[in-house]
Amino acid sequence: MERVAIIGASMTKFGSREAWISELLVEAGRAGLDDAGVEPSRVDHLYVSNMASGELEGQTGVSNALAHDLGVVPAYTERVDQTSASGGAGIYAAWRSIASGASECTLLVGGEKMTHRSTAEATDVIASLTHPVEYKHGVTLPSFAGLVARHYLDRYDVPRESLAKVAAKNHRNGVDNPNAQFRTEVDVETILDSPIVADPLRLYDFCPITDGSAALVFCPESVATEIADEYVVVAGVDGATDTHVVHERDDPTHMAAVAASGDGAFEMSGYGPEDVDVAELHDMFTILELLQLEALGFAERGTAWELIEDGELDRDTGSIPVNPSGGLKSKGHPLGASGVAQAVEIYEQILGDAGPRQVEADVGLCCNVGGFGNCVTTTILEGA
Amino acid sequence: MERVAIIGASMTKFGSREAWISELLVEAGRAGLDDAGVEPSRVDHLYVSNMASGELEGQTGVSNALAHDLGVVPAYTERVDQTSASGGAGIYAAWRSIASGASECTLLVGGEKMTHRSTAEATDVIASLTHPVEYKHGVTLPSFAGLVARHYLDRYDVPRESLAKVAAKNHRNGVDNPNAQFRTEVDVETILDSPIVADPLRLYDFCPITDGSAALVFCPESVATEIADEYVVVAGVDGATDTHVVHERDDPTHMAAVAASGDGAFEMSGYGPEDVDVAELHDMFTILELLQLEALGFAERGTAWELIEDGELDRDTGSIPVNPSGGLKSKGHPLGASGVAQAVEIYEQILGDAGPRQVEADVGLCCNVGGFGNCVTTTILEGA
Repeated sequence: MERVAIIGASMTKFGSREAWISELLVEAGRAGLDDAGVEPSRVDHLYVSNMASGELEGQTGVSNALAHDLGVVPAYTERVDQTSASGGAGIYAAWRSIASGASECTLLVGGEKMTHRSTAEATDVIASLTHPVEYKHGVTLPSFAGLVARHYLDRYDVPRESLAKVAAKNHRNGVDNPNAQFRTEVDVETILDSPIVADPLRLYDFCPITDGSAALVFCPESVATEIADEYVVVAGVDGATDTHVVHERDDPTHMAAVAASGDGAFEMSGYGPEDVDVAELHDMFTILELLQLEALGFAERGTAWELIEDGELDRDTGSIPVNPSGGLKSKGHPLGASGVAQAVEIYEQILGDAGPRQVEADVGLCCNVGGFGNCVTTTILEGA
Repeated sequence: MERVAIIGASMTKFGSREAWISELLVEAGRAGLDDAGVEPSRVDHLYVSNMASGELEGQTGVSNALAHDLGVVPAYTERVDQTSASGGAGIYAAWRSIASGASECTLLVGGEKMTHRSTAEATDVIASLTHPVEYKHGVTLPSFAGLVARHYLDRYDVPRESLAKVAAKNHRNGVDNPNAQFRTEVDVETILDSPIVADPLRLYDFCPITDGSAALVFCPESVATEIADEYVVVAGVDGATDTHVVHERDDPTHMAAVAASGDGAFEMSGYGPEDVDVAELHDMFTILELLQLEALGFAERGTAWELIEDGELDRDTGSIPVNPSGGLKSKGHPLGASGVAQAVEIYEQILGDAGPRQVEADVGLCCNVGGFGNCVTTTILEGA
């Protein structure tokens, strides 16, 4: 089967934006097409990764609106929702469009508009993705993060500072990302002194609430070689689910859907963790970055904290730089955009376009997580 | 490329149901797997077609919940939203999963829970799929239907009774559908005397608000020949969009996205309108059934009303029976379920399992419409 190429990428400035969801989607979509050098009329499939435009803004039909606004009508459109993993799901959907022969040029735009709602309102919408037996009793995603972090620290005798060092690293990386929501270094002491949200996790262990959008343009590799100056290839992609009721899992520190989707993506690509040069992981909470490293096979269970302690995840000197973009932690987390933006970063890293964030990379991995690992998509990109 | 087969189908009772969205999805999903004779563990991709579980019930993450409840974890899941055409989009998504080689067994479940909300609330959610420049000024979908119906009647000198006869036919067909919301014949006089909703359209020109769910099981044909007693084949499928701002269209009586998606599906299948033995069309409003017949090439523009006048659309005696299931008009319209349920009917018709609704059919077509033709998916099924 012919390989699927990515020939263009873009993201908007993430943060608090004076724009509604459709404007954010248009901004990233248009920039993505420009980056690819593709006319709108060439697009035959258009996906919008978005979790909650209806719940947050009272606006649905966003993929049809975007088709109209970008001038890609009569392209086929669809909104892809896999909660906070909608962006990664969009990548997988775009891959299937090209791989099935249904599309010769697919545009994926992920986006979310959130900051006009209060933190309580936004948290309420996000919590509704979990099982009512949990969220209706107040066990929201931050609560799970606190419970699991406490269990991980106790079980593996991990210093609390290791979690803070994940946040500090990602904030450090975000300083060099002009599109990041936060571009300020935060030291470990500040993180450890910040207000408690869900013990032992504190404010700086959590990603912010964010507006933003990101886009990717896909085509068959045979088309990419004709029309693109440069491109990367989707070497592997797969998705998986875990129990919807989080407390039914045998081991809450093992992210089974991360492992399953990672296995699938690695198998498809022929690569293993040792071949990955750079990774963008879903650090919605600091603890998640460590748990993903373990589930993806970058570290044995209970040992990923040693990687952060040893500096192995550092952008400029580590053996496996994680979240050179700043991650969700400093870049921000506009739900539907995040998984797309992860791949935008890996795309730029592989093409050598990452500026001050540049690492040496020919193979990169993204892991996009929905809920507390309820649904996950893993994507592996490589140079052409 | 190998053909994509459908090996199982089911739908719940449509109507006012004492069940929330997740229960409806489980009911149809389990029955679909039973009909296919497939164990949950065989399912590797699971799609949920649903427009508004978050807006209508405050529950998101419904595809992950369904994976959990059906026991298909760690299958990949995704919610597919294309507004009222989400069901047809789910069929296209399932087709791409199989055709790309990503899945060997895909379960599609479409569903919506609506009747717990008032008609005003549900209409408000549905209206949000259109452009704010229209719906915020009160131009909802029923308003468009009224405006376009008036234009069609005047322009082509069509008797008002023709629209009523569409409703009467579909109600007549629904009497024989045990899962239909309404199973009562309604005569043309009653329809013409019913309360005005959007002049010239009256209450009986509109489909109801409905709860319900429907499911289909897909696999490659080579798998179907091994594990299924009987199956149908997806001969053609395609989707398209029209302008999001409805009033920008050159001719509001021409459904361009219906035409484009129909052209794509016909081209892929090698069939034309003359080869279609039975069709399920999206009769959300009576006028839409006629406009779809014209856009799909079953009639010249401005002439589809003659088909209903001549009895050509009748189930037992017509040359092209339309909506033998009762259509959205009498079967009901649970948004995300409707496109799936259309294909369930065609599946049963082709396999000869439609009981008192049976027509002679080897090739059948479904057309699922979102908004006022904003996004459309057309599917053509044939016997194996």
